[in-house]
Amino acid sequence: MEYQFALRTKKVTASEVREILKIVARPEIMSFAGGLPAPELFPVDEVGRQCQAVLAEQGPKALQYATTEGYNPLRQWIVDRLTNKWHINVGIDNVLITSGSQSALDMISKLMVDEGDVIWCETPTYLAALTAFRLLGPTFEAMPSDDDGVIVDGLEERILQHKPKMVYVIPTFQNPSGRTWSMERRKAFMELMTKYEIMVVEDNAYFELCFDDIEYCSLTNFDPKGLVISSCSFSKVLCPGLRVAWINAAAPVIEKLVIIKQSTDLQTATLNQMVVHRFLTHNDFDARVKMICDVYGERRDAMLDELGKSLPEGCTFTHPRGGMFVWVTMPECVDDDRLLQRCLTYNVAVVPGHSFYPVDPKKNTVRLNYSNLPPEKIHYGVSKVCQAIAEEIAASQS
Amino acid sequence: MEYQFALRTKKVTASEVREILKIVARPEIMSFAGGLPAPELFPVDEVGRQCQAVLAEQGPKALQYATTEGYNPLRQWIVDRLTNKWHINVGIDNVLITSGSQSALDMISKLMVDEGDVIWCETPTYLAALTAFRLLGPTFEAMPSDDDGVIVDGLEERILQHKPKMVYVIPTFQNPSGRTWSMERRKAFMELMTKYEIMVVEDNAYFELCFDDIEYCSLTNFDPKGLVISSCSFSKVLCPGLRVAWINAAAPVIEKLVIIKQSTDLQTATLNQMVVHRFLTHNDFDARVKMICDVYGERRDAMLDELGKSLPEGCTFTHPRGGMFVWVTMPECVDDDRLLQRCLTYNVAVVPGHSFYPVDPKKNTVRLNYSNLPPEKIHYGVSKVCQAIAEEIAASQS
Repeated sequence: MEYQFALRTKKVTASEVREILKIVARPEIMSFAGGLPAPELFPVDEVGRQCQAVLAEQGPKALQYATTEGYNPLRQWIVDRLTNKWHINVGIDNVLITSGSQSALDMISKLMVDEGDVIWCETPTYLAALTAFRLLGPTFEAMPSDDDGVIVDGLEERILQHKPKMVYVIPTFQNPSGRTWSMERRKAFMELMTKYEIMVVEDNAYFELCFDDIEYCSLTNFDPKGLVISSCSFSKVLCPGLRVAWINAAAPVIEKLVIIKQSTDLQTATLNQMVVHRFLTHNDFDARVKMICDVYGERRDAMLDELGKSLPEGCTFTHPRGGMFVWVTMPECVDDDRLLQRCLTYNVAVVPGHSFYPVDPKKNTVRLNYSNLPPEKIHYGVSKVCQAIAEEIAASQS
Repeated sequence: MEYQFALRTKKVTASEVREILKIVARPEIMSFAGGLPAPELFPVDEVGRQCQAVLAEQGPKALQYATTEGYNPLRQWIVDRLTNKWHINVGIDNVLITSGSQSALDMISKLMVDEGDVIWCETPTYLAALTAFRLLGPTFEAMPSDDDGVIVDGLEERILQHKPKMVYVIPTFQNPSGRTWSMERRKAFMELMTKYEIMVVEDNAYFELCFDDIEYCSLTNFDPKGLVISSCSFSKVLCPGLRVAWINAAAPVIEKLVIIKQSTDLQTATLNQMVVHRFLTHNDFDARVKMICDVYGERRDAMLDELGKSLPEGCTFTHPRGGMFVWVTMPECVDDDRLLQRCLTYNVAVVPGHSFYPVDPKKNTVRLNYSNLPPEKIHYGVSKVCQAIAEEIAASQS
């Protein structure tokens, strides 16, 4: 049978990273390839207690259909968090619960993207966002960036030549680079977006995972016209397996997204929303975030320390202030796919960096994840990665 | 701010039915408008026990990311059910877990629908399927049907004139009509689809809810070429609030859908899949289905009995053998929206039928749901609906 699928299916292929993750799932492999939160930090018992409490208190309601917008007490908790901790001025009409952040990106794509639209994004950037957008046929253009974020100089000229339909950015603890935009860049970037009324999709998946004493904020803080659509998730601060996340945006944007969500998945699981809400209101959420940041901060330190000691000359690496990833750039003679193969011979795994480029992929970069291994394993594993890099450099010169 | 949303957003509006459901949520209203399973039949305590067991046995895994395809033991349970009870020959590669049936329809739409494609469907049909498809720009054409299902005579001539990209059908206990296709019609329909290699989306949401001793099967049983994409859900036989459903189809179709699901929502909630699986393997599922069918069957009987007694002359109604809905056709002088308004003055609610028509909506039909009220309330409420219909007929003649 020769199937006649929709044309868009030719544009999407299996996520290379998810395919690599299947290969490296072998137990003897020490993996820096994934993006998994540390499962030993999941509040298993407390989630169990809250499940029981929700089912005991409102069982039939928790298992029944519910509204598309989301469970109102959870929406209200998010409003309070955004107001008090993120200093964003929002109400309940600005918040839509989603079934994970990927679903948020899918719905934002449906809201915004017509075939042929141009989307600007960072390079490298989160590849699963690109695949969500790609289903609806846009083209991507990269905005140059440095350690302070997207470089705003020169963007206005490009806008005047061709205004993009929207931009997609991860200003805080970026995946994959680990970079965080400076406050100046955020402000300058949003001034430009505001002037030309360009929609901004801000991915805040790692927003709460800040290890150091630095100043940062959501782009929504510089958004007088309601152009920013932010997505954020409980996956990194609670657990991913419940698939509860949210979008916050201007009320007219949320209103349209609710209609799209009716068609997309009707609603996010009722029980899960209630359990997350009860967890949040019966535990010290700030203490939980701090605990995760302490653990991940230590792991980040171990990784940076080992990279500083063992990475061969000619390589550079980023210094994340939060999040889950370090980005390593190697001499151009190194090929990231060959490097992965060599790493696997040492039973360590990395993700080749080229997957994360929206255009013009570079082959001399890798992403390293530090959230899922203890410091001593990170030291050992990273030293092996560095050894493999050194060998690849040597091999290319021989 | 004047937002420039994607063009498709102009085609989708808030679901009229979901808007009506908000109006009729007032506690004094007796509603036949929704499509809610009876919450008093939800296995609240048992779901709680299985949550505890899953978290105790494999808590970190239940709260972590997992594969896009779905939790393998649950996929295998579905394979066994389809093999042993539905008599469909499938393996695990034929099954994809989805976050509810709506998400299945959304992903099938992405797989199949290019702008301008023609989709054939029953009339009336499930309107939320149309909205999922509509986001990607197809046009709909109706296939005439009667009490035995889609009328196959004449379809071949239409195919020869213009072959549709796919058909969408609900052959068993249809929403909204309550009709079930005869075995002869299923066979004849699939012979035609097979001959012309037309993809068939079969919505089996109500498949297990059979009250009477009748013969029926999935269209997959007459599908030698792998053209049928079936969606089915645990929403009606367990509970909707966990959002666990599945698609079964040919392996190459599932393979493509997995890639689409990666971009759409990454995966269905891990905990929910494990809880559903443990529920199914630690309880007598057949006994549970029978219990639900006994209760709903009694409610169906109450509704048919009252309609037979109280419906004014000139009206007809369907006799569902399962599922959750009865479809009433009134004289053409009755307007379904005005009827709803009159019903509300009696504190009863129905859904106007015109929403369920893909093309050429008829205004003299209503859908009545019987799953969510006990027989005595059904008798009382339906008598009020009949009174309102009689008054509308009288008003139109005066």
